[in-house]
Amino acid sequence: MKQRIAIDMDDVMADTHAKFVRLYLEGEMPRYTLDELKEKSFHELFDEDEYRAISQRVYEPGFFRDIPVMEGAQDVMADLMERYEIFIATAAQEFPNSLREKWDWLHEYFPAISWRNYVFMGDKSILNTAYLIDDMPRNLRTFQGEGLLFDALHNREDTGFRRVKSWQDIAKVLL
Amino acid sequence: MKQRIAIDMDDVMADTHAKFVRLYLEGEMPRYTLDELKEKSFHELFDEDEYRAISQRVYEPGFFRDIPVMEGAQDVMADLMERYEIFIATAAQEFPNSLREKWDWLHEYFPAISWRNYVFMGDKSILNTAYLIDDMPRNLRTFQGEGLLFDALHNREDTGFRRVKSWQDIAKVLL
Repeated sequence: MKQRIAIDMDDVMADTHAKFVRLYLEGEMPRYTLDELKEKSFHELFDEDEYRAISQRVYEPGFFRDIPVMEGAQDVMADLMERYEIFIATAAQEFPNSLREKWDWLHEYFPAISWRNYVFMGDKSILNTAYLIDDMPRNLRTFQGEGLLFDALHNREDTGFRRVKSWQDIAKVLL
Repeated sequence: MKQRIAIDMDDVMADTHAKFVRLYLEGEMPRYTLDELKEKSFHELFDEDEYRAISQRVYEPGFFRDIPVMEGAQDVMADLMERYEIFIATAAQEFPNSLREKWDWLHEYFPAISWRNYVFMGDKSILNTAYLIDDMPRNLRTFQGEGLLFDALHNREDTGFRRVKSWQDIAKVLL
């Protein structure tokens, strides 16, 4: 049997941060430029009200449907699927509006992955795969297999997990 | 840490068969009575065309939203939650229309269970809970913990798993 890898969607397969940046820059009088937004996390830049305002956008219908695919994800995924069984493990249950949008997004951008391998959940400690690739240290902390931390502005301080900087980096570690 | 139990929705928490029976009896010229439909499975009674016609109803919007709660499920679930951590594990991914409907159904009828503990999946072999309660022998066969087969007309022939006849029976085994 192939080894199993669970892979997160937001900020791993999908460039969710890029979507937030676009929404922020489209808003009224953004205080920061695109270059500044690429250097620091929203937590570092924004005050509490700004942070809450941008975070709330996830509840808007359609938010999850048009997020850009992370650079390199489609090519490396195709290679991973030859050697591993891939499960998509996304914490979609917090946002019930996201459920159908995430299903449609996966079906459009990763058509080779069967719906049988989608897992929409809240708590990732329930997974029994060999690996989990995730941008959230809290998900890796309760995971029982080997966690790989996908690099993101919001997890730069975390040193508890093996870090992958990109999909090319995932390929180097797992292929 | 509490032991973990994963529990299926259709024909375990939700009386999905009762919904199918109602739809069938509401249709044009049903050949069988309610009493006959309580004795034998659709597979035993129906020819291929009839079976396909009734099975297709799951794709109708709203199908999963108004399924009746299985008798005893709410009371026994409340007792189980005191002793175990409960996850809801449903093969919702086959029917993308079901995702939001199942979320809303759970939120309405089992409000004490957090969305953190919902797992909408295709393949239940990914679960690492101690128990799985399910009406489908194929789900129990690939599950790594202890499976309990929830009695249903369509699984009467299966002898491979410990059978629970009702929610009261689940309480007897697990409480």
